[in-house]
Amino acid sequence: MRKKISVLEMALKAKEASKALMIASTETKNQALLFMAEHLRLNKDNLLKANKMDLDSLKPDATDAFKDRLALNDKTIEGMASSLEMMATLNDPVDNVLSTKTLPNGLVLEKVSVPIGVIAVIYESRPNVTSDAGALCMKSGNAVILRGGSESFNSCQEIMVSIRYGLEKAGLPIDAIQMVESKDRAELQELISLEKNIDLIIPRGGRGLLSFIKENSHIPLLLHLDGICHTYIHKDADLKKSLDIVLNAKLRRTGVCNATETILVDYDVMESHLKPIINMLIENGCEVRGDRLTCELDDRVIKATMEDWATEYLDAIVSIKVVKDIEKAINHIDMYSSNHTEAIITENSKAAEKFLKEIGSAVVMHNASTQFCDGGQFGMGAEIGISTGKLHARGPVGLEQLTTFKYKVRGNGQIRPK
Amino acid sequence: MRKKISVLEMALKAKEASKALMIASTETKNQALLFMAEHLRLNKDNLLKANKMDLDSLKPDATDAFKDRLALNDKTIEGMASSLEMMATLNDPVDNVLSTKTLPNGLVLEKVSVPIGVIAVIYESRPNVTSDAGALCMKSGNAVILRGGSESFNSCQEIMVSIRYGLEKAGLPIDAIQMVESKDRAELQELISLEKNIDLIIPRGGRGLLSFIKENSHIPLLLHLDGICHTYIHKDADLKKSLDIVLNAKLRRTGVCNATETILVDYDVMESHLKPIINMLIENGCEVRGDRLTCELDDRVIKATMEDWATEYLDAIVSIKVVKDIEKAINHIDMYSSNHTEAIITENSKAAEKFLKEIGSAVVMHNASTQFCDGGQFGMGAEIGISTGKLHARGPVGLEQLTTFKYKVRGNGQIRPK
Repeated sequence: MRKKISVLEMALKAKEASKALMIASTETKNQALLFMAEHLRLNKDNLLKANKMDLDSLKPDATDAFKDRLALNDKTIEGMASSLEMMATLNDPVDNVLSTKTLPNGLVLEKVSVPIGVIAVIYESRPNVTSDAGALCMKSGNAVILRGGSESFNSCQEIMVSIRYGLEKAGLPIDAIQMVESKDRAELQELISLEKNIDLIIPRGGRGLLSFIKENSHIPLLLHLDGICHTYIHKDADLKKSLDIVLNAKLRRTGVCNATETILVDYDVMESHLKPIINMLIENGCEVRGDRLTCELDDRVIKATMEDWATEYLDAIVSIKVVKDIEKAINHIDMYSSNHTEAIITENSKAAEKFLKEIGSAVVMHNASTQFCDGGQFGMGAEIGISTGKLHARGPVGLEQLTTFKYKVRGNGQIRPK
Repeated sequence: MRKKISVLEMALKAKEASKALMIASTETKNQALLFMAEHLRLNKDNLLKANKMDLDSLKPDATDAFKDRLALNDKTIEGMASSLEMMATLNDPVDNVLSTKTLPNGLVLEKVSVPIGVIAVIYESRPNVTSDAGALCMKSGNAVILRGGSESFNSCQEIMVSIRYGLEKAGLPIDAIQMVESKDRAELQELISLEKNIDLIIPRGGRGLLSFIKENSHIPLLLHLDGICHTYIHKDADLKKSLDIVLNAKLRRTGVCNATETILVDYDVMESHLKPIINMLIENGCEVRGDRLTCELDDRVIKATMEDWATEYLDAIVSIKVVKDIEKAINHIDMYSSNHTEAIITENSKAAEKFLKEIGSAVVMHNASTQFCDGGQFGMGAEIGISTGKLHARGPVGLEQLTTFKYKVRGNGQIRPK
């Protein structure tokens, strides 16, 4: 049993480890990932035992979805291991020359990608995030302090055994990936107060947790509070594309942040497009809440309230509003969007370009499903989350977004004139 | 006289204006800058009158340096006007395609630079910052709320007349650049609390003001608290370069954040390099505070305390420490640096590359003066400040750093497989 240390001590150790990671070779980091994967497979029985302890300790009111996210089995453990192996194949995001400029006085200015330093990742009771997030931070040269949901405590501790094995065997400091060894909220509070020691917090989870961190920390955050994504059916939309995309954007999966929550439809295509869309959604088990005009089209539609436009359902429910034109659609999105992902369906390229330009969200799409907003789909290999903030990273946060840059300036004795 | 409005009202108007700015053409923005410059020159007499009011209201204990920053004359006003004209010649940082990728399913992913939105710039009593910061934010497509030091209130209000003239004449909303029309701290407090309305705060000024904002706001900040820059004389340093660079890095100007505050010198070159460096600094009117070994070299050196290593003098004072080797130099910088700018002087390229790689500061230099860390010197055209944070922007903050990005995804009906 390892000795329990304070969160501040962890952060200081992380800072030390981050110096070793900053200069670690790509090969060393990749080896650590492969050793972790190897050990995860070997240690499967212990991990399943720890996971059973977690499941057995669940309160009786835990939902099936919650249990589902917490439970591990042969397949999910294999998934964690192969995800680590996949990360070993991704390009190293560190030490890339982003731009180079020679100044008139001969100074050569090189902008180079570097790790951020020490990152804290705070997440819900999903054990697989432990290895995914730990590995992404490490591969991008950052030390990380993980804090998983308390219900997954034993599972996470067991995953950490594999992580430490991998780090140690590759010759990296084991403090490169640490986990808060407590279920206490007090330690979470201490973690988010360490602004001198932690460079970035990536929180994942419910709105309550995210708001708590936002209100109580002065450390920079990458997070998304809500994913209220819109799909807008423009009057020049192709009907088949509209149907296919709406079905996928709303119902492919409903509990995900990139699912469409509100559909806006041009008045001109109410009969031709909206009517079959409503029918399709309801036939596929989706509850439809609409404005007055939408309700008039189909008596199975429930009247939407003002609150619906600002709600992320994360469920088989959708809100629908009829708009006069693209200006009104943009205005509605400006008002209610969470800056995540919005799509326009149209064959009119001028309207499409206007939408792509004037909507301020992190990701704007033309004739595609909002559910494409995802690090894997975007070719980033893996993601640690989605950022709806405006600075540093927007949209999927992958390896590249876990780095920052510095300027290396090379001279031969230059001094600055008065 | 315009009617005084609340800070929240200003922020809401700024948000509206930011939508117009987001889609404003480069030409329109440049025209606004030129009209502002024209009006500044025409309005010179009124501006000088307003500035005299500010100067006459100064408390008797105002320092000469303070008065110097506040005072305007023909030359400084011409400088403000030509700075606006210069900004009109810079490339538009908005709407640039940063990268493009076609995914296997045919989706085209375009990463495009976009404005951040609404920025607040809070600064000391330097009237010229009003036009500089306002123009930089506007040119990069952002609406801005300015809050200058209370002692420069009348001067800033008069500069705003020219700014509004330029905006209006170019057909841009006058709320694109607004100024808090009050000297109250209460309005500053309200400004920094508007996290739903303001996307970024750029504070400039003394440590007290910056700490106050950092502690009391949850809005992302770009700022530097301190500029404790180091110049390290490695054992393989060229003596002439060492002397030239140290003199320039410390004494070219002393009140600037990129001035070197601490010099580290390898033990091996104490006699050969440090001795003449001390002599040169003292002969040029610089007070030298050193560790024990430095004191032993020259009896004019004052003994440094622990506090000296953590002090930004902003004056003709320097601290000097002898180190065993490059490892110790890096350790010292890790401990005391403010992540601004550090330089190594050496003819040994291996040592130089080690220093450039292992020092985590925003700007790391080889054989050059730390005073080169500056937006103008770096070829950015103009800067609004220096960022020592790790996210989004590091080092000089110019037009490009006042933008963020979004992804434009163009498809033809793609849906995401299960």
